[in-house]
Amino acid sequence: MKIIDAADLEAIALGGAVYGTGGGGDPYIGKLLAQNAIRKSGSVHLIDVESLADDALVFEVGGIGAPTIVIERLASLAPLLNAVEALETHLGRRVTALMSGEAGGLNSTIPFAAASALGLPLLDGDPIGRAFPELQMSLCTLQGIAASPLALADEKGNSVIIDAHNNATAERFARSITIDMGGSVFGALYPMSGAQVKKALIRGSISRLLDAGYALFNARAKHADPVQALLQASGGRLLHAGKVTSVERATGGGFVRGHADIEGLDGYAGGCLRLSFQNEFLLARRGDRVLASTPDLICAVDSETGEPITNEKMRFGLRVAVLGIPCDAAWRSDAGLALAGPRYFGHDVDFVPVELSR
Amino acid sequence: MKIIDAADLEAIALGGAVYGTGGGGDPYIGKLLAQNAIRKSGSVHLIDVESLADDALVFEVGGIGAPTIVIERLASLAPLLNAVEALETHLGRRVTALMSGEAGGLNSTIPFAAASALGLPLLDGDPIGRAFPELQMSLCTLQGIAASPLALADEKGNSVIIDAHNNATAERFARSITIDMGGSVFGALYPMSGAQVKKALIRGSISRLLDAGYALFNARAKHADPVQALLQASGGRLLHAGKVTSVERATGGGFVRGHADIEGLDGYAGGCLRLSFQNEFLLARRGDRVLASTPDLICAVDSETGEPITNEKMRFGLRVAVLGIPCDAAWRSDAGLALAGPRYFGHDVDFVPVELSR
Repeated sequence: MKIIDAADLEAIALGGAVYGTGGGGDPYIGKLLAQNAIRKSGSVHLIDVESLADDALVFEVGGIGAPTIVIERLASLAPLLNAVEALETHLGRRVTALMSGEAGGLNSTIPFAAASALGLPLLDGDPIGRAFPELQMSLCTLQGIAASPLALADEKGNSVIIDAHNNATAERFARSITIDMGGSVFGALYPMSGAQVKKALIRGSISRLLDAGYALFNARAKHADPVQALLQASGGRLLHAGKVTSVERATGGGFVRGHADIEGLDGYAGGCLRLSFQNEFLLARRGDRVLASTPDLICAVDSETGEPITNEKMRFGLRVAVLGIPCDAAWRSDAGLALAGPRYFGHDVDFVPVELSR
Repeated sequence: MKIIDAADLEAIALGGAVYGTGGGGDPYIGKLLAQNAIRKSGSVHLIDVESLADDALVFEVGGIGAPTIVIERLASLAPLLNAVEALETHLGRRVTALMSGEAGGLNSTIPFAAASALGLPLLDGDPIGRAFPELQMSLCTLQGIAASPLALADEKGNSVIIDAHNNATAERFARSITIDMGGSVFGALYPMSGAQVKKALIRGSISRLLDAGYALFNARAKHADPVQALLQASGGRLLHAGKVTSVERATGGGFVRGHADIEGLDGYAGGCLRLSFQNEFLLARRGDRVLASTPDLICAVDSETGEPITNEKMRFGLRVAVLGIPCDAAWRSDAGLALAGPRYFGHDVDFVPVELSR
């Protein structure tokens, strides 16, 4: 068990931005909410899932919808607490512990705010090991664990409980209500027993964000290479380093889609890397050659500072390093690739494990 | 209290089609469902609201969505019973009695199926006195009675509970989920105490359908004028009689919009009546002169048989009589007209009470 205080949230937010793989929402505002909550209600106990009883009740909590709107509307925690309470009332049971639905992006910091405010422990882990845009994209789905019943709430006092017969349907219903609620909502979802959580949880993935954040802070403090520090902390691989020469971006259907071309510099002088995104970076190619693809993690950081770069911050002239980080092995199964592999997102390429690409 | 058996449903379905005012969904399939339920589970007790205790719990039950799809999917009552159960579970209370949300169209017969299957009484009344296309269009809204929490269910086992802070928001959320659920769903909504129901209910409006249906049957049996029989039973006024000369119709946004022109015959030889509809007939004009408009009821029936004619059945050459029936007085208040008057539906005309028009 770790005690997470307001200072630790700085590291988690930075690590969460790296692991947000270009999308997932900026953890910054979630961090402020969490820090406020911690100052008021106390530190958060980040616990190991093994310490949970098998009959414990766990909820995922977080924001759903367009990250930019989530961030604009994150003035208050009240809707998130309303969503938790609505799901508790619906189930007729109190929740034992909270968990993050994704270890990366905005939802890596928001759960700390709820955990502090409600005096509940937060699990050190998540069921994805990164950020993904749709709620059925979770190892829970692969384990047959239902996202339903789930509760959504907005800041106007509206709440909706969805009980869908499968997780893709839950996503579809939740997306419609999210749009009706103004584009972003808070949710409490995937109510699970302790025994179920133990099947689906990627252990230590929240600590991993903390470690990545502190590794970056330390490197900066010591004037060491931040990219090397991140590679060490993440077990990732440097795919490319260069200068952004063009960015194409289109917004539609609740997503930002496009690609950035990065002309190689230094040891990568020979080639240009194309980074395709749909919110998250999904595919890194040099010509026809796939260097990395979803579900593996593709992260872009500023070459000098190690500062994570989202798809929205990509712009001409930026010097970036592109890292590839292996995803959890469960994502590389046939079922995992069907749920979140490149073809799901419309890229007609085979998945190549990032550690094997050349 | 009246005992409603399978034969009575024939009359209620016919009366419900007249009071469907051209939209509201054909009560035919709801009638079959109700008759099946009654044969299996027994007759329905149609009770006066005054016999309810003030702390009784009442739900509206019915179909939501495009009537044509509702009708296609009405193979089974199970989703409606699931919706009732989901709302009961959510409220932690058993329902005492059911009510129809609209006395007209499909939802005048469906509640009988649920009442029989669940062994519950059905109120002789409704909170509209006709059919309207959106769920906030109810005297409940004028009385400050919430449509929420409400439960929707489909035939795949999905259910959703909506708790919206006002009835227009409930309509918006329910409409989205209805589209996600395939265009039509069953719902249990407007959970009310006996005391609340007494404030909003139009008494006897289900009996009125029964009476109108039997009046038509009797007229046909005696070879009497069915239009005269309907006028007597409804307290309505004959606005026009003639031949349909043109129909324009467009489907979009979940509605059928358009108008039918009816060239006058007999005593109406001088003029052409234009009947505008958005599912329901909303406006009857001769030139610039408004003869009747929503929220008053405009009904079209076959001149020979008295058979009700929906907007979808309007076609060239049909001989029709157009009847205007006064709505409940509460609809003629400023608030009532704001909720369901001609301007709400985009017609820039003043409401003229049908009994005063010339």
